[in-house]
Amino acid sequence: MEEKEISQAVIGRLPRYFRYLGELKDEGVERISSQDLSELMHVTASQIRQDFNNFGGFGQQGYGYNVSFLYDEIGKILGLDQTHSFIIVGAGNLGQALGNYMNFERRGFLFKGIFDQNPALVGKPVRGIPVRPMEELEQFVKDNGIEIAVLTIPKAAAVSVAEKLVPAGIQAIWNFAHVDLNVPAGVQVENVHLSDSLMKLSYNISRYRQENSEDK
Amino acid sequence: MEEKEISQAVIGRLPRYFRYLGELKDEGVERISSQDLSELMHVTASQIRQDFNNFGGFGQQGYGYNVSFLYDEIGKILGLDQTHSFIIVGAGNLGQALGNYMNFERRGFLFKGIFDQNPALVGKPVRGIPVRPMEELEQFVKDNGIEIAVLTIPKAAAVSVAEKLVPAGIQAIWNFAHVDLNVPAGVQVENVHLSDSLMKLSYNISRYRQENSEDK
Repeated sequence: MEEKEISQAVIGRLPRYFRYLGELKDEGVERISSQDLSELMHVTASQIRQDFNNFGGFGQQGYGYNVSFLYDEIGKILGLDQTHSFIIVGAGNLGQALGNYMNFERRGFLFKGIFDQNPALVGKPVRGIPVRPMEELEQFVKDNGIEIAVLTIPKAAAVSVAEKLVPAGIQAIWNFAHVDLNVPAGVQVENVHLSDSLMKLSYNISRYRQENSEDK
Repeated sequence: MEEKEISQAVIGRLPRYFRYLGELKDEGVERISSQDLSELMHVTASQIRQDFNNFGGFGQQGYGYNVSFLYDEIGKILGLDQTHSFIIVGAGNLGQALGNYMNFERRGFLFKGIFDQNPALVGKPVRGIPVRPMEELEQFVKDNGIEIAVLTIPKAAAVSVAEKLVPAGIQAIWNFAHVDLNVPAGVQVENVHLSDSLMKLSYNISRYRQENSEDK
């Protein structure tokens, strides 16, 4: 398939299309027009067509899209036709929550190991996998060809752990630590900065209050 | 302060400015030029100036920005000069992780209660606050004027819980359930769809591999 450089904004919207199409597929819907998809997802039909045109358009618009085909194609674009191995660094509440989250496996993300520096946690099973000490991290990544490291550790530790993971061959970091990581261009980073998300919510609460009090 | 309608993209970047300015402030930095801030944050100086111009520009660029002033101003814009009460619905691993996360309190987000439908979890303390049964949810929100509900429950439950929270007076929902919520315009929603974020990472891994194999 011929592809131009796709913006991260478009990429960011693909999982949501994938989610909605998966639900439609589960409900037995075979075809859907961009108009109907637009109403369901609360985005404009023109946005949908623009997004899909980045990938060749996915079939005739007059007939609507073939749900199952579109679901599979977007899944392939997202790399979900392959499996990805991941480890979790940090076996606190959040690390354990992510380790126990079964849906990742359904999408082909395979939970291979979990690490913590706290001796009290080492050996404790998370979904059947015992927590390993941090000393074993680099060797484990190398030996098992781990692709993704999930960082659920404080920001002070995250930078140095990332620096160890890169030479060990990690391909991607899913970063929950509240710090931006500097890694080489070949290592993909996706940040989940929870505080940032909460602050955005706080902004929108304040803004709404302000607008409402101005209206009075 | 005179404000035009600010795009959610700009709002989304404010917490990151706030974070970097907080770190500069902690390090005793008093002034910083947009150029230096640009290099530190890996965004263009023009982007920074454009973003800040949405809020009046925050002072003379020739001298650079006053770090402490800028930090406080952005904090105020984000509504962090006020406290916000929140409850967590869903006392599983993720709910407990968020309840135990001390940084939220530092930013003025006060953890007031946690709810679960599982009788085995009811009464269990999370940061000193016992898990309450779901039957008490609406009354608790009303009685305590709770502003924010954090949903860490499966998607099937999230929609009906949101429908109960709205008439109880909730102002905002921080939604970790893998579903989009339809709520009235006055209720703010911020989604953290973890699977979506992981899929974006997966896309970027695949894309990088593809580009690299094409180069050979």
